[in-house]
Amino acid sequence: MILTVTLNAALDLTYEVDALVPHRAHRVSTVVEKAGGKGLNVARVLTRLGEKAVATGLLGGRNGSRVAELLDVPAAFATVAGETRRTVVVVDGDATGFWEPGPLVSAGEWDAFVDRYTALLRVARVAVLSGSLPAGLPVDAYAVLVTAAREAGVRVILDTSGPALDAALSAGPDLVKPNAEELAEVAPSADLSTVDGVLAAAAALRERGVGTVLASRGPEGLIALTPDGAFRAVPPHEVSGNPTGAGDACVAAIARAWRHRTPWPGALRDAVAASAAAVASPQAGDLDVRTFQSLRHGVAVTALDPR
Amino acid sequence: MILTVTLNAALDLTYEVDALVPHRAHRVSTVVEKAGGKGLNVARVLTRLGEKAVATGLLGGRNGSRVAELLDVPAAFATVAGETRRTVVVVDGDATGFWEPGPLVSAGEWDAFVDRYTALLRVARVAVLSGSLPAGLPVDAYAVLVTAAREAGVRVILDTSGPALDAALSAGPDLVKPNAEELAEVAPSADLSTVDGVLAAAAALRERGVGTVLASRGPEGLIALTPDGAFRAVPPHEVSGNPTGAGDACVAAIARAWRHRTPWPGALRDAVAASAAAVASPQAGDLDVRTFQSLRHGVAVTALDPR
Repeated sequence: MILTVTLNAALDLTYEVDALVPHRAHRVSTVVEKAGGKGLNVARVLTRLGEKAVATGLLGGRNGSRVAELLDVPAAFATVAGETRRTVVVVDGDATGFWEPGPLVSAGEWDAFVDRYTALLRVARVAVLSGSLPAGLPVDAYAVLVTAAREAGVRVILDTSGPALDAALSAGPDLVKPNAEELAEVAPSADLSTVDGVLAAAAALRERGVGTVLASRGPEGLIALTPDGAFRAVPPHEVSGNPTGAGDACVAAIARAWRHRTPWPGALRDAVAASAAAVASPQAGDLDVRTFQSLRHGVAVTALDPR
Repeated sequence: MILTVTLNAALDLTYEVDALVPHRAHRVSTVVEKAGGKGLNVARVLTRLGEKAVATGLLGGRNGSRVAELLDVPAAFATVAGETRRTVVVVDGDATGFWEPGPLVSAGEWDAFVDRYTALLRVARVAVLSGSLPAGLPVDAYAVLVTAAREAGVRVILDTSGPALDAALSAGPDLVKPNAEELAEVAPSADLSTVDGVLAAAAALRERGVGTVLASRGPEGLIALTPDGAFRAVPPHEVSGNPTGAGDACVAAIARAWRHRTPWPGALRDAVAASAAAVASPQAGDLDVRTFQSLRHGVAVTALDPR
């Protein structure tokens, strides 16, 4: 089983309007409610690929109950007293997002969650920790979860950003997927438009305790610096669609590959194909299985000379 | 008791953001949840002025339960199976609104509401019907409610617009408060920037069965064409603030004046003062009682020669 963690889940509301004009009133033509959160996307993609996944995290209040009703993956969430946040995305062709801040989680609620998470680790092979931290959690919350996974012998992927990522690096996550900002911060002098620059920044992150650093290059694929060397994976052609959720599909594919002990080239091939298949999916946070199957054989994976 | 009706109540969400930029993601700094709907505003203003008011209407689903929790006025709402709508207002200094469409109300739910409303009319002196109709209701829904009020000997104010207003005029509401668009529609050749033009349009509406026509001129006060003649009411000075809810305060003041058999000049004086006191209130849909008390003695009401 692959365990996904969503500490700051959301009730995602998508509003369709004709055209968003600031400082005017808009009649919303359709409202779609969805269970939102990066870890839920990861679990959805895994389920779509026939993999057994369980989603855990925190839910609270009326919005939390609504998210629980809307869940489309096996789940074991812990309850908090605060109100799960809403996210409102207004779509008029392009998307404008409004992120509520999320619940204030108490120390007792966090301890109870860690207990639940630790119990779930006993039956997990891989853990995926995704997204932002709700208020009230210590900045090193992910360090606690990474350490617990390592102690349980469960490989752990951490897909977050900012201080939450920074504070968890020394706990030694098996894989992180920093964005361009984080790469730039860790290696200010590197030219991230070049493969060498990305590898230099990834090496700096690995020195801080991380196993593998995965750097997305958007439609140009991935660069990975792993304990077994550096790789570049490039899709056969560009896929048009909505890039939201492509990173979650990428992470899901890696977790699945680890679960099946697939070596790096195959894992990265699947990660690139899954990202592209997420872009091609009409639903953000989901994956088009046929696109995944058709693309994965065309992904070119090359070993890079380490610098 | 004054009965207010809100058929399309809402869970009002106000999101504060730094600056609204289309097609970008925004972190919401504060979220305020409020029970929303024009009839609820009317009941709130009445309560604030020491008047006994009861709010009725339709509520459904999780959003409806949340509205019920947030109600700050005596209420007797009927339950529907559909989901009460949300309204999201994004504030970055100025306001950008998103209105969900609201629940689909069944014929049986509507019949049950009419029964409840008719029972409440037995203990009401004035009824105020405010706002839009949710989907599923017949376009003449307000005509049904106006007729029931008249049959019960209860004076009835109708504050709505478009087809819902048009279809209820012949039922004979005691007062309507059309907007500029509706006045223009009923009297296309009238120059609504002049007092004579407004009176001509108001006369056309009275011919269709309405008792009194109240035309707001924003910061310049009101023009009223009543069975007892035409009047103009002008505030002593302009008040700065948020005009949302000024119309609801205006209607509340008229209902209160009717309840106390206050003659037209006094009723219109209070209506203008209440509108201005709503503009001055930091909370939309509420009224600043001190501004109301200080302004009402300065409102100038003059009788107009009918044309």
